[in-house]
Amino acid sequence: MSDKAAKRARFEGVFDTIAEELLAYLKGEGMPAEAIEWYKKNLYHNVPGGKLNRGLSVVDTLEIMKGAALTDDEYFHAALLGWCIELGFFLVSDDLMDASITRRGQPCWYRVPTVGNIAINDSFMLEAAIYYLLKKHFRQQPYYVDLLELFLETTFQTELGQLIDLITAPEDNVDLSKFSLEKHHLIVVYKTAFYSFYLPVALAMRVHGIKDEAAYKAALDILIPMGEYFQVQDDYLDAYAPPEVLGKIGTDILDNKCSWNVNTALKYATAEQRQVLDDNYGKKDAECEARVKALYSQEPISIPARFEKYEQESYERLNALINEIDEDKSGLKREVFTSFLGKVYKRQK
Amino acid sequence: MSDKAAKRARFEGVFDTIAEELLAYLKGEGMPAEAIEWYKKNLYHNVPGGKLNRGLSVVDTLEIMKGAALTDDEYFHAALLGWCIELGFFLVSDDLMDASITRRGQPCWYRVPTVGNIAINDSFMLEAAIYYLLKKHFRQQPYYVDLLELFLETTFQTELGQLIDLITAPEDNVDLSKFSLEKHHLIVVYKTAFYSFYLPVALAMRVHGIKDEAAYKAALDILIPMGEYFQVQDDYLDAYAPPEVLGKIGTDILDNKCSWNVNTALKYATAEQRQVLDDNYGKKDAECEARVKALYSQEPISIPARFEKYEQESYERLNALINEIDEDKSGLKREVFTSFLGKVYKRQK
Repeated sequence: MSDKAAKRARFEGVFDTIAEELLAYLKGEGMPAEAIEWYKKNLYHNVPGGKLNRGLSVVDTLEIMKGAALTDDEYFHAALLGWCIELGFFLVSDDLMDASITRRGQPCWYRVPTVGNIAINDSFMLEAAIYYLLKKHFRQQPYYVDLLELFLETTFQTELGQLIDLITAPEDNVDLSKFSLEKHHLIVVYKTAFYSFYLPVALAMRVHGIKDEAAYKAALDILIPMGEYFQVQDDYLDAYAPPEVLGKIGTDILDNKCSWNVNTALKYATAEQRQVLDDNYGKKDAECEARVKALYSQEPISIPARFEKYEQESYERLNALINEIDEDKSGLKREVFTSFLGKVYKRQK
Repeated sequence: MSDKAAKRARFEGVFDTIAEELLAYLKGEGMPAEAIEWYKKNLYHNVPGGKLNRGLSVVDTLEIMKGAALTDDEYFHAALLGWCIELGFFLVSDDLMDASITRRGQPCWYRVPTVGNIAINDSFMLEAAIYYLLKKHFRQQPYYVDLLELFLETTFQTELGQLIDLITAPEDNVDLSKFSLEKHHLIVVYKTAFYSFYLPVALAMRVHGIKDEAAYKAALDILIPMGEYFQVQDDYLDAYAPPEVLGKIGTDILDNKCSWNVNTALKYATAEQRQVLDDNYGKKDAECEARVKALYSQEPISIPARFEKYEQESYERLNALINEIDEDKSGLKREVFTSFLGKVYKRQK
């Protein structure tokens, strides 16, 4: 087994423990067997099986901060927080709102026979699991309330990002006048950066015992632009990565997504190019999609050149921010951020 | 203005403050005007406008426990907790899952034009408001974490009750073999009693400074059966209250609800009566409904007589439990519970 596969297997082992604890709670409350079985299916269908980057980064961050291998107990607690992030990521409700068909090669949960709109309550029950687990495993820690607040606050921020996204770019009503790079910035910061970048690091910092609020501010000031950079890459790759490398076929243009590409195009388009965008963006039609794609690479829009410049500048700016960290004063380690950035910089998928 | 109307108006005034605080938070985060406007509509469409019994009972309970009028500051904090209960009551997602048409005389939120499935994210955003408000107004209190846990735990319990209900009584698949009075007991305790009966009182007890866990256990032991009694009344009135008194037309039989009436009928039905239930329950047909209704009053089912007995026994049992309270030792007041019970006993609507 490769190192990466072994790491993943160890992390997944913790999920089995978590699922058992949650199901034991339901049993202890006298829930009927059908309800316990249903929750088990909900948990296993929706929580493991993804890339697990968010979850694993709690473990990685804590290990870097400690500067040594974690004990089994430290590993378990960090992995548990990682799984709490995975539990709270709104995949079930997002798929319902986006009317998605499949996720991770299997039908979306709401499309499983007999599930349907019960998926809404199921998505609330995945959220609720976080707080059950935090209480069970962290109630005695001085930072327990900080963990609660981190989850509760980043959850609200994620919902705000989702709201802006949903009302700016509804799939069935294309109106590019609502789009802008500023709107894109808000959506990605709120929908992605807080939850997927700041939260895992901040959780590990709390477990490591960092209390200085300035250290959290410093981490935030790096991780929010890093999350934005990550999402811009995601948007860029959706149109420009070869599907066989990306592992999926991008559909952002067809789906009227408020992506970095279209917002950059809108900013630099000539009047004629703007007309092409208005006529073709967000249409469920391969020819319209091809016209938009061709336009993206035309001057003065020139998405690939602009992306390359954006990527380089982001990389330099993030490194500069990381270098400003005073390790002794803050208790942070630069490596937490350089390691994160190293995984992201110039990724092809 | 009547006393009751004045009380309601004062309570509603606090909601305006709360809504302003939440919208100010969004503004402070740089959210676009459309998102702020959307959240405002979400809040005002979905939170005020109901009977507000749950919310008002936090204020009433605290006042009884204090034994004197609340100061303005005490009132505001108790009312704020009351509104948090109203915020978290899952009406938006329940309506979506039940495919309901109207609520409180207006269209359900998801049926408002352009809302649709965005209502799912909106229902999460009503939940999130609770924890924003708790942090803003109670962060410095020693019982802050207890308030967080009370909301988080009763929310999970409510979701468990909702899950059992949804998988036991799906509207489109009638199977009375899944029903039983035991199942009904679990559904009403988890879906209603914890959130609507225990939570308001427990919140007020925390604010009043009660720390003795035995006092919370004593309150729970009274309020859970009281909540169950309340829901049994609700079920009974759905079939037996005159619509002009009830203020609505009961639809439990048409909707395949797992109600106390049908579960009691199933328990006492002869084989022939059982067949009538199987053939007619949960059908969207007025004649089927009329057959079930007629059956309810037949011997040996005799719902009205059994309900009368149940009501009397519940009343006596609850009073006995209330009398067992040691006011000095627990810091509780019996009047909290007798007042609650007085509002519920023999209600006609």
